[in-house]
Amino acid sequence: MNQNNSRKIVQLSHGGGGKEMNHLIKDLFFKAFDNPILRSEEDAAVLHFDGNLAFTTDSFTVSPLFFPGGDIGKLSIAGTVNDLAMMGAEPQYLSCSFIIEEGFEITHLKTIVESMANELKQSGARIVCGDTKVVPRGCADGIFINTSGVGRILRKGISVKNLASDDVIIVSRDVGRHGAAILMAREGLALESELTSDCATLWPIVEQLIAANIEIHAMRDATRGGLSAVLNEWACASNVEINVNEQAIPVCDEVRGLCELYGFEPLDLANEGTFILAVPKESADATLEIMKRFCHCEQAAVIGNVNDNRKGKVVLNTPWGSSRYLDLPQGELLPRIC
Amino acid sequence: MNQNNSRKIVQLSHGGGGKEMNHLIKDLFFKAFDNPILRSEEDAAVLHFDGNLAFTTDSFTVSPLFFPGGDIGKLSIAGTVNDLAMMGAEPQYLSCSFIIEEGFEITHLKTIVESMANELKQSGARIVCGDTKVVPRGCADGIFINTSGVGRILRKGISVKNLASDDVIIVSRDVGRHGAAILMAREGLALESELTSDCATLWPIVEQLIAANIEIHAMRDATRGGLSAVLNEWACASNVEINVNEQAIPVCDEVRGLCELYGFEPLDLANEGTFILAVPKESADATLEIMKRFCHCEQAAVIGNVNDNRKGKVVLNTPWGSSRYLDLPQGELLPRIC
Repeated sequence: MNQNNSRKIVQLSHGGGGKEMNHLIKDLFFKAFDNPILRSEEDAAVLHFDGNLAFTTDSFTVSPLFFPGGDIGKLSIAGTVNDLAMMGAEPQYLSCSFIIEEGFEITHLKTIVESMANELKQSGARIVCGDTKVVPRGCADGIFINTSGVGRILRKGISVKNLASDDVIIVSRDVGRHGAAILMAREGLALESELTSDCATLWPIVEQLIAANIEIHAMRDATRGGLSAVLNEWACASNVEINVNEQAIPVCDEVRGLCELYGFEPLDLANEGTFILAVPKESADATLEIMKRFCHCEQAAVIGNVNDNRKGKVVLNTPWGSSRYLDLPQGELLPRIC
Repeated sequence: MNQNNSRKIVQLSHGGGGKEMNHLIKDLFFKAFDNPILRSEEDAAVLHFDGNLAFTTDSFTVSPLFFPGGDIGKLSIAGTVNDLAMMGAEPQYLSCSFIIEEGFEITHLKTIVESMANELKQSGARIVCGDTKVVPRGCADGIFINTSGVGRILRKGISVKNLASDDVIIVSRDVGRHGAAILMAREGLALESELTSDCATLWPIVEQLIAANIEIHAMRDATRGGLSAVLNEWACASNVEINVNEQAIPVCDEVRGLCELYGFEPLDLANEGTFILAVPKESADATLEIMKRFCHCEQAAVIGNVNDNRKGKVVLNTPWGSSRYLDLPQGELLPRIC
C-alpha cells in the first residue's frame, strides 16, 4: 500500500452528479455553510429584495493555496464581500462554485471550507447556492473557487465616476502586502519573515463609515494592479487629475525590501484587504478617525488629492521634489495572486 | 518563426490587472456583451429588484470545448439561465468569470464569447459583471467559465418539495443527448452520426407555461446525473413515490446505440436542454399542448405519476411487465460533461 491509498482524496465521481457528489455536498459544504436557504436544495436560492442591490463575481486561482495570512478559502470570501462593500452594499448572499482537481486531498478541502465559513462570520454574509465540478488530474491546479455575491445597497452614489476636485485620497493601510506575501511563499522565504497578506473582510469598517454618514465619492479595494490600477481607473473614469505624495503612502519594510530584491513596485502589488477612498477634504478627519478604530487601519492616511489640471492622469510626487506620471501597471505582473 | 508566433494567444499579462487585461476586457468582452450596466465598470453591478429573486451559480469545465450542438460558451449561458427558469424566474442578469490557460487561442476565445452573446438573445438576459483570470500553461485545461445569475421570480412555489400524489411527470424531449454527444465527440465519432447535444435555453417555453397559468409543482432540467438524479431527488425531497414507465421515456436511436456500446444508461446521461415537470393530472394536456409548440419539445410526454406508496423511491416499470427501483447514479459517470 502506498501512502496515497491511506489518504482520502477527491475523485471524479465526486463531481458526477450522483451519490458520491451528494455525500460531499451534504457532509462537507452544507455542514460548514449551513443556513435555511442553502438547505432548501433548489436549483436556485430564493431571496427577497426591495430596492437596489449590488451583484459581483470573482474566480480565485491563487498559488500557493495556503500563504502567510490566509488561504484560497479566506480570499474567496473576503474578495467578493469586499467588492460588495466597496459599492456601499451590505454583503448578504454569496454563491460558491468549486472546480477541484481529481486527487485533491479532502483534508485540504476541509481546511479551505472551514476558512471560508470563518471568514463569512466577519460580515454575516451567507452562502446560499453552489456548484462542484471535479476535473481529471492535470486539468486544473488543485482547486479554483468562484464566489459571486449580492447585497442591498445602503449607500447610493459611490462610483469610479464621482471623484471631484478638492477630494482627498485616503488609503486604509500599508500597501503591497498580499502580492509580497504570495511572492515570498512561492520563493520559500515565508519562514524568514513575519510578513503576512493583508487579506481581510472590509465590511465592518465600511459599515461604520456609512453609519457615520461620511460622504464617500469613490471607494475601491486595491486588488490586482494595486494602488496604481485603482488610481488610474479613477482618474480616467472621473476625468480628473489625482495628485499623490509618494512619501505619504505607507509601505512596510518587508514589502519595500522584497520589491527592491525582485524589481517590483509596491504601488503595483496586489492587496486583498486594503482600500482607497475619495472623500471631500472636509470629511478627511472624520473618515480617518473612524478607520483608525480598526487595528488593521491604524496607518490609514491621506495620500493625495484631486484637481482639474491634467485630466485622466495620476501624478506622483517623489520625496526628492520631482514628479512623474504613475501609469497603469503593464506586462507580466505576479501571476495567480488571487 | 514557428506557427505559434503567428497566432494570437492569451498571455499571463491578460490576467494581471494592468493594461493588457483592460484591452482584452474592453475589446472582446465589453463589445460582445455590451449593455449600460456592464459599461459602468464599477466593482459590482447595481440592479433594482422589488420582491423575490432567484440566485444561482454554475462552473463549466466541459471537454471538448466544442461539441456537436454547442460549445462551452453556449452551455455556460443556457445552463445558468435554465437554473433560473426552472425556479419560475425570468433570467435577467448574469455574471461571467473566465479562468483561461496561458496560450489559449484568442480566435477560440472569440468564438466562445460570440456563442455566449448569441445564446443570451434566447432569453434576453444580460451579462452585467465579470472577472478574468489567466493561469500558467498546464494549470487549467483551456478555459473554464463560471456564470451566476439573478432574476425575478414570476411564479412562486415551484419546488423539489412540492410534488403531490396524483401529479404526472412530464419530460420535455428525448433524454441523454448531451452526455451522448460529449462521449461521441471524445471518441472521435462525431462525423459518423447526426446526434447533437440538446443544449438550449428553456426560458421561452417556461415563460409560456407561466403565462398560461399552468400549475407547476416542480420543474428541473435534468443535467448531471440525468433523469435518474432529478427523479430521485424529487422523490426524497417530497417524500413520495415516483412511478415511471420506461417505454414512455423518449430516447433516440443514436443515444440508445451509444449507451449499449459503452455501457451507459440513457436515464443517467446528462442533458442540457431537457427538463422535467410535475403538474396535477388535470393540467397534463394543457402543459403538453404548450410544450409541443416548440420544435425541440415535439416529443414531450407524460412518463409517470406520483403516489404515496413507497415514499422516497423511484419505481421504473419495464416494457416486460417487471418493475425495479431506479437509483441515483453512482460511480464514475462521464466526467466533464458540463
